Amino acid sequence: MKARMDDGTTADIKAVWFENGKVRMIDQRELPLKLVIVDFDDYRDVAEAIRNMTTRGAPCIGASAAYAMCLAGLAKADLDEAAKFIKAARPTAYDLFYATDWMYAKLKSGADPIDAADEYADITVAKCRAIGEYGGKLIKDGMKLMTHCNAGALATVDVGTALAPMRNAHDAGKKFFVYASETRPRLQGMQLTAWELNQEGIDHAIIPDGSAAYYMSQGVDMIIVGADRIAANGDFANKIGTYDKAIVAKKFGIPFYVAAPVSTFDFNTKTGKDIVIEQRSEEEMTMVAGTRIAPIGSKALNPAFDVTTADLVTGFITEKGIFKPSEIAEMKE
Amino acid sequence: MKARMDDGTTADIKAVWFENGKVRMIDQRELPLKLVIVDFDDYRDVAEAIRNMTTRGAPCIGASAAYAMCLAGLAKADLDEAAKFIKAARPTAYDLFYATDWMYAKLKSGADPIDAADEYADITVAKCRAIGEYGGKLIKDGMKLMTHCNAGALATVDVGTALAPMRNAHDAGKKFFVYASETRPRLQGMQLTAWELNQEGIDHAIIPDGSAAYYMSQGVDMIIVGADRIAANGDFANKIGTYDKAIVAKKFGIPFYVAAPVSTFDFNTKTGKDIVIEQRSEEEMTMVAGTRIAPIGSKALNPAFDVTTADLVTGFITEKGIFKPSEIAEMKE
Repeated sequence: MKARMDDGTTADIKAVWFENGKVRMIDQRELPLKLVIVDFDDYRDVAEAIRNMTTRGAPCIGASAAYAMCLAGLAKADLDEAAKFIKAARPTAYDLFYATDWMYAKLKSGADPIDAADEYADITVAKCRAIGEYGGKLIKDGMKLMTHCNAGALATVDVGTALAPMRNAHDAGKKFFVYASETRPRLQGMQLTAWELNQEGIDHAIIPDGSAAYYMSQGVDMIIVGADRIAANGDFANKIGTYDKAIVAKKFGIPFYVAAPVSTFDFNTKTGKDIVIEQRSEEEMTMVAGTRIAPIGSKALNPAFDVTTADLVTGFITEKGIFKPSEIAEMKE
Repeated sequence: MKARMDDGTTADIKAVWFENGKVRMIDQRELPLKLVIVDFDDYRDVAEAIRNMTTRGAPCIGASAAYAMCLAGLAKADLDEAAKFIKAARPTAYDLFYATDWMYAKLKSGADPIDAADEYADITVAKCRAIGEYGGKLIKDGMKLMTHCNAGALATVDVGTALAPMRNAHDAGKKFFVYASETRPRLQGMQLTAWELNQEGIDHAIIPDGSAAYYMSQGVDMIIVGADRIAANGDFANKIGTYDKAIVAKKFGIPFYVAAPVSTFDFNTKTGKDIVIEQRSEEEMTMVAGTRIAPIGSKALNPAFDVTTADLVTGFITEKGIFKPSEIAEMKE
């Protein structure tokens, strides 16, 4: 991804990478106002960076775990102990466990630690790039797009999922406009997606989550969002606010695409009804910078995700191509 | 409206009223964390309170202007000068001009200043109470309701419009639950509606604006919102985020009601297409307590209202009864 550095130059950087014996990553807690790059030479510090959300986004957590294992390998640390320590960093991210085990097997079989971790990260980015190529073809000059939350390079090491088609189209010289829905309560749309679009030079504006119908009624050409988990029937979980947008898009006949790698499809989950929604703390809603903004005595509800039904999805943009909900089974083959 | 006072007692107060020679009002800028009552004995100070948003909401601004004229009358001030000064407090609120002129005529014809201003405020509240009686009948025990923004007592001197049926049903001993959508960017749902519901003891929770589809898909029985302006065909303008909720409610077959006095219907406006939407400053989106929260270089859009089409409205709850969009013309008669 493009990023303006402190010295005023623009660099092409990743959310996490290996350089000169150290793991380097963007401290995502400092965005969008400061671009801070942090360095680690001990795997335990990388695990802590995963725990304290210096880095976030499931694919990016996976790559960070791979680089943590890389540091453990370089330091000739006890790999069983290191793997256990790294896996304890976050409780639920599947990629964290998968990447740690993948690296453990590579290192046990004698692979070079840096090459192996780079390979893991490269596989993640290559899928995003393929999503960008398939999805980029959908974007035409003059289009108005809408996205929600952040399914960008910050979450996937580089390129992103929902933002991959936009990067691809922008690199091809197409001119288009993106409405970035701010995504209360944590504002990932405002603070991460808008930051990425701004760095890339893609024309965009931050909008309140409740303005989707207002803008769609005036003319939006396509919606592209990411997904946290996709059921076998095409129902999918994504950040709260996605389902509203999909219903409104259907009313106005606006194509609604979901960009995600094939690994996001959970063929063991039959429909969206089987997806359990994480309920997060009400403080994310009622507190801003340590100050309460809601009435004392009023409770707040904070569901992290909603489930959009497959009938509202035009297509899934994956690294294997674009699939309609009815074509998902073909993906398995 | 009920309000817990500093001494721990619960009082029944209004957003603005006259008492012991002074105009008293709730300082709405201090809500929801502090209930501050301010007093004025000079009409110029009441005009300033309108200007600086100590009080807000069109009907409440009208009543405040009436009480400002009352102070001018009691002080035997030049009524032409006072009316001009009061009307300059806010640029667009129709109620401000209407109420000032109404009081001017009353005072010129020799009416008692306090009686006249109280009459103006009482007319406003009586309409809300009638809306509450008609709308209250729609609310049944065990229902889950949803509302957006604040169409409550704080905006209308007392009782409210969208909140009037809820107050009526609660006073009748019915048990129900209200989802209060927080209403970014200014959070009137979180900070004013939740405050009012909390003071009344009505069971409720604040939800993110993007969670409407999530909760409606799980079971909401009725939506009640207010309106800023209703066109002759039933299209209506209300706070941004209303249109999204109306579309989602239609999909799930959930009754969607608009509570407003007949004076909110603008029979000279044929359809919603003729309603111009105020675009507010992007700082309301990008700044919190003086701190920028959005990336430097990203712009934000901040439409204050959206227009919901009449086909999505189940009924308009007015002081004359409940009207379907197709029955609006009958209201004029």
